[in-house]
Amino acid sequence: MSESFDAVDIIRTKRDKGELSSEQISWVVDAYTREVVADEQMSALAMAILLNGMSRREIGDWTAAMIASGERMDFSTLSRPTADKHSTGGVGDKITLPLAPLVAACGVAVPQLSGRGLGHTGGTLDKLEAVPGWRAALSNEEILSQLEDVGAVICAAGSGLAPADKRLYSLRDVTGTVEAIPLIASSIMSKKIAEGTGVLVLDVKVGSGAFMKTESDARELARTMVELGTDAGVHTVALLTDMSTPLGLTAGNGLEVRESVEVLAGGGPADVVELTLALAREMLEGAGVTGVDPADALADGRAMDVWRRMIAAQGGDPDAPMPTARETHDVTAGTDGVLTRLDALAVGVAAWRLGAGRARKEDPVQAAAGIELHARPGDRVRAGQPLLTLHTDTPERFERAVEALADAWSIGEEAVDAPRIVIDRIA
Amino acid sequence: MSESFDAVDIIRTKRDKGELSSEQISWVVDAYTREVVADEQMSALAMAILLNGMSRREIGDWTAAMIASGERMDFSTLSRPTADKHSTGGVGDKITLPLAPLVAACGVAVPQLSGRGLGHTGGTLDKLEAVPGWRAALSNEEILSQLEDVGAVICAAGSGLAPADKRLYSLRDVTGTVEAIPLIASSIMSKKIAEGTGVLVLDVKVGSGAFMKTESDARELARTMVELGTDAGVHTVALLTDMSTPLGLTAGNGLEVRESVEVLAGGGPADVVELTLALAREMLEGAGVTGVDPADALADGRAMDVWRRMIAAQGGDPDAPMPTARETHDVTAGTDGVLTRLDALAVGVAAWRLGAGRARKEDPVQAAAGIELHARPGDRVRAGQPLLTLHTDTPERFERAVEALADAWSIGEEAVDAPRIVIDRIA
Repeated sequence: MSESFDAVDIIRTKRDKGELSSEQISWVVDAYTREVVADEQMSALAMAILLNGMSRREIGDWTAAMIASGERMDFSTLSRPTADKHSTGGVGDKITLPLAPLVAACGVAVPQLSGRGLGHTGGTLDKLEAVPGWRAALSNEEILSQLEDVGAVICAAGSGLAPADKRLYSLRDVTGTVEAIPLIASSIMSKKIAEGTGVLVLDVKVGSGAFMKTESDARELARTMVELGTDAGVHTVALLTDMSTPLGLTAGNGLEVRESVEVLAGGGPADVVELTLALAREMLEGAGVTGVDPADALADGRAMDVWRRMIAAQGGDPDAPMPTARETHDVTAGTDGVLTRLDALAVGVAAWRLGAGRARKEDPVQAAAGIELHARPGDRVRAGQPLLTLHTDTPERFERAVEALADAWSIGEEAVDAPRIVIDRIA
Repeated sequence: MSESFDAVDIIRTKRDKGELSSEQISWVVDAYTREVVADEQMSALAMAILLNGMSRREIGDWTAAMIASGERMDFSTLSRPTADKHSTGGVGDKITLPLAPLVAACGVAVPQLSGRGLGHTGGTLDKLEAVPGWRAALSNEEILSQLEDVGAVICAAGSGLAPADKRLYSLRDVTGTVEAIPLIASSIMSKKIAEGTGVLVLDVKVGSGAFMKTESDARELARTMVELGTDAGVHTVALLTDMSTPLGLTAGNGLEVRESVEVLAGGGPADVVELTLALAREMLEGAGVTGVDPADALADGRAMDVWRRMIAAQGGDPDAPMPTARETHDVTAGTDGVLTRLDALAVGVAAWRLGAGRARKEDPVQAAAGIELHARPGDRVRAGQPLLTLHTDTPERFERAVEALADAWSIGEEAVDAPRIVIDRIA
């Protein structure tokens, strides 16, 4: 590609609220990957994009340029259609674990390339690594053959997909430009489109524990991603879901695996089951599979069968008990009443401080650390009853975890409804 | 200073249209100078400042932080008051050359720390270096003693004044963030305040040949700089002046020295004389010198005396003829009529292409290259009459210089007034 564009011209155009051409976008992303455009130029451009926005066409071009920076996967040789789910991240969000085997049990292949957690939100790979023996790293050939044989794969995304995104994300992280919706959307979608799935269902979370704190931001992100997927020929649907309260009754790696297995066994918390089924129905519908109710596959053990084969195929022991924490500490209710609020962010930060999450990419996580919830909003509680049980291998962490929970809940006198899980559907 | 601030927090605050505290500004400028804050972080902050602005208090704090990054000069030991002039730069702007000796001849010391040219605007040091033997670099002691003995110094600004500005300016140049008025104003004013002058008169140019193309931008820059100077205890006044047409009848280093000497000898183009006197009166008034008419000091040779002593004190020969170009080329009028427009930017770019200016800091300039004007807007011209004479030592440059002049002037039928030089005064 010729160096016929100038980074400063491109920055100025976006700074002055102009629209970048397809050629300019293709050049600047490629030149940044080749280190011809410097970090300080890309960060100024990212700030201009954050403040002045991009058109649907520009975001599509940006995403295409990120995809072009790396390899693409191809699932067209599989005998089954493929469907994938992406969540923007939350507290207690273990949905991928029951969802992937459930959808596979209904006849659709699920290639779930996942990441690790950072900060107060957990990562799917961190959760599964609580299963003794399980390994996250698979070759492209292993992914394809497991999809054909088992139907579901949850593994680490290779570094070959959209490498420009990796470099740009690290830059945005230190330059106050993470929150640009066009860049968030193209970061997520470039990897999902490069991955080659035919159907994509997005779980866009909104609330204190989510990346998007307001419904309007979450709607804009959802709409932008649905447009990007649709324009790229991927059947894309988004559900807007609540993250003001943790999902289910556990936050923490091994604790969440245990809860996921309960769901696969036909039990588990109602909100986790509801969201798992809602997402499964979208994936099946998108893949053209009709007349199959995923609730049946939970009830009759078919989803559990796929789970066991999926874990075993990646070296894990599906019968091994989850590791338990060395110490636990109960946090109790101060008064009788109805739990009216249990804040997702506070619980997420507390679980992180107990050792379930990491502050830096290179930090380890504890498999057994985390928080069990004994009540959810809408439940009656009694003074002295445990509301939360904190788990950790390093009890010196209890103090700061309890601090994070200082204003985490409210107890009122009137009955309240539990928050709705699925707020809206955007297609 | 403690590292108790976080660059990302500071960027986010400005990104979200917040106001930065004095402590945040002081920290971020200092930390950038120490390379604790990275280039990519400062460029994102600069873009946020460009798009979201800064308050008067923030700009003052930013300027103070730039000053604190280096040394300050002190002229308080001089027996005379000091006054300085700063121009935002234009085509044919040689005013510093006659102005400094003129004001010194009227009893006020003029410490004129100047720069070199870049692009289509000339630099004062480049012009004076056309004088055989003259040197730009003086020590602080030489500056002080020349101010005491001669009354006027035009020399290079040392690297000790506001070093943060040098690093930040280079960054802004490659990141599309040059045009941020708060950063332009603090860049100029940090050096002028650190220099320690008691009075500062700003010549803020507006028009095609100026950095500020519109009167509203020029007014905002002028007002911002006057506020900064006033808040820092410097008597500061700005004149808004026309730069739609070149100043005087010459653009180019040696040609402009020759024209300046004509002004000092009591002659020279009317617009150059008018602007020189207007700026001189502001400087004298600011310094509290009353009852002195600078026009007298031009007429009776006192200004010329100071010029000769100032040039000689810096090794120059005031009697040496200016270098002449190896080749000249006349550009003629196509029709009879009145010259209604002669574009400053086109003339500046043509002079630059002839060798009078430089594209990169390390490029040399030709002392004799440039353009002579034979008519100014308002003048009658005849078909075939030379309008401009181009000078260069490298005649292969004529072609591209003539190209730059393709749409440089208009000839009409009706008489027009010459443009006003001084548009407004802002104090």
